[in-house]
Amino acid sequence: MRNKTYGVVGLGLIGGSFALALRENAIAAPSRILALDVNKAALEQAEESGAIGKGYSPGSEAQMLSLCDLVFICLYPGQTIDFLKSQKDNFKKGSIVVDVSGVKTALEENRRSFSPHPRFDFISVHPMAGGEKEGFLHAKASVFKGRNCLLIPSPENKPQNIAFIKDLMRQTGFARVIETSAAVHDGKIAFTSQLCHVIAAALVDGAEDERITEFGGGSFEDLTRIAMINAPLWTELFLSNKTYLVKSIETFEKSLSSIKKMLVEDQREALVKKLSGVREKRIAMSRSIYPESRSSV
Amino acid sequence: MRNKTYGVVGLGLIGGSFALALRENAIAAPSRILALDVNKAALEQAEESGAIGKGYSPGSEAQMLSLCDLVFICLYPGQTIDFLKSQKDNFKKGSIVVDVSGVKTALEENRRSFSPHPRFDFISVHPMAGGEKEGFLHAKASVFKGRNCLLIPSPENKPQNIAFIKDLMRQTGFARVIETSAAVHDGKIAFTSQLCHVIAAALVDGAEDERITEFGGGSFEDLTRIAMINAPLWTELFLSNKTYLVKSIETFEKSLSSIKKMLVEDQREALVKKLSGVREKRIAMSRSIYPESRSSV
Repeated sequence: MRNKTYGVVGLGLIGGSFALALRENAIAAPSRILALDVNKAALEQAEESGAIGKGYSPGSEAQMLSLCDLVFICLYPGQTIDFLKSQKDNFKKGSIVVDVSGVKTALEENRRSFSPHPRFDFISVHPMAGGEKEGFLHAKASVFKGRNCLLIPSPENKPQNIAFIKDLMRQTGFARVIETSAAVHDGKIAFTSQLCHVIAAALVDGAEDERITEFGGGSFEDLTRIAMINAPLWTELFLSNKTYLVKSIETFEKSLSSIKKMLVEDQREALVKKLSGVREKRIAMSRSIYPESRSSV
Repeated sequence: MRNKTYGVVGLGLIGGSFALALRENAIAAPSRILALDVNKAALEQAEESGAIGKGYSPGSEAQMLSLCDLVFICLYPGQTIDFLKSQKDNFKKGSIVVDVSGVKTALEENRRSFSPHPRFDFISVHPMAGGEKEGFLHAKASVFKGRNCLLIPSPENKPQNIAFIKDLMRQTGFARVIETSAAVHDGKIAFTSQLCHVIAAALVDGAEDERITEFGGGSFEDLTRIAMINAPLWTELFLSNKTYLVKSIETFEKSLSSIKKMLVEDQREALVKKLSGVREKRIAMSRSIYPESRSSV
């Protein structure tokens, strides 16, 4: 790993955090970390702070990509597909190219237009990490620590490259790397991630005023922190996973409606039973989350 | 404050935390902290650990209450009313009696049956604090640190007693004490607290299995931690605040439904606008939460 040159395309929160995680986990010296971004100020800041060796601006894609043994594409999902299509002949021969898109079906549907390719092996991952503050300014290596990394292997991927990526992800801090398919990925994250963001947004949207949290005990803040969302990115993520997301919203609406019915009808015993069951289920979930690394209870 | 004797009725998470907060903030020596509970093991544990001076079991209410200058009633809302009605003639002359119920309208409706009383001044507060693990075993002084305490003053309360309670609450760790009415209290907490707990419960209830969080990035865990609820207590809280809670659920359902509609109809621009607005609103909320003590962003 140490003799390779790493490229980060899109030096935002995720791309920047990969650059920092490579350095802080002694996977690569900064001189071997290159980054491409439209934002010159971010590149300069990254160079000056020693996070990367050299920054490249649009127009210099071929120049940078020809040097990189591994490229992380950390762009919005649609941009990622465009970048792969337009740059496919510029990647270094024998390189690995990784995307980090939060939705995978659209990418798989476009895969044939850039992969398999004689120059590079394209591997699709989804680092389940982020934060409510975007951009390189808020990037930090610890973003990935203890988190899940989902990996969508393809039959065309070389086994040694899949093994390399799994190892690399663990070394950058992820607690586990889980292999799955694009369809399973999109169905599950519609529930565990996208639905939660939609709920948080709806909750803030419904709040009567900004001062209502003075009457709060912390629950409202915990539930709505993720409502501080990157609106264009999440709109794209939501719309490109619309079918699964709408299904998840409707599953949730049914559960909510069933609890509301118990309230309206004063079904005390049914409500105690429902809440007790939910408590047990959530405790079991805590046991299944990160069993080795940390407890979420 | 140091010369007073404090009584805690119900030595659970909240009652136990008040006992510990009195000691740890040097408000009262443990010998001046008495507790009443049905759970003898909890009383023994509290005595042995030096959290309280002496524990009392049901049947000894009059004996304990006759010694206490200030009594915290930390029972379920219905039990609180029953306790006040049955014990009203046993409180020490000139004492202050505080309840900590999470709903206030039902209490106010029953107030006439125990207050005003020649022996004690009844003051109603709601410490906006808690945790997903109940009982004295999980009590800790820090539960109140930086939190909101809501106070429902009554015209019959003596101003010096209200001032004393406000001062006491701040000394036990609360960041601020906010005065409000029972109706405003119940309306606001239906949204900021109860609705959040209902949403968390519905989200866990709708999860297809306990292992789905392996596909999560932390949002699901953050949103559902409060689903590890004390089912009988929260059923009582929900049902005794049913009107406001159902109204809050319906406000939220409308917001959720409006976001779902934008998704189904591919209203990209409307969705970006909605999510941007929500982000701004939530950031403004963070500024208004605990402005002096901590940021929730």
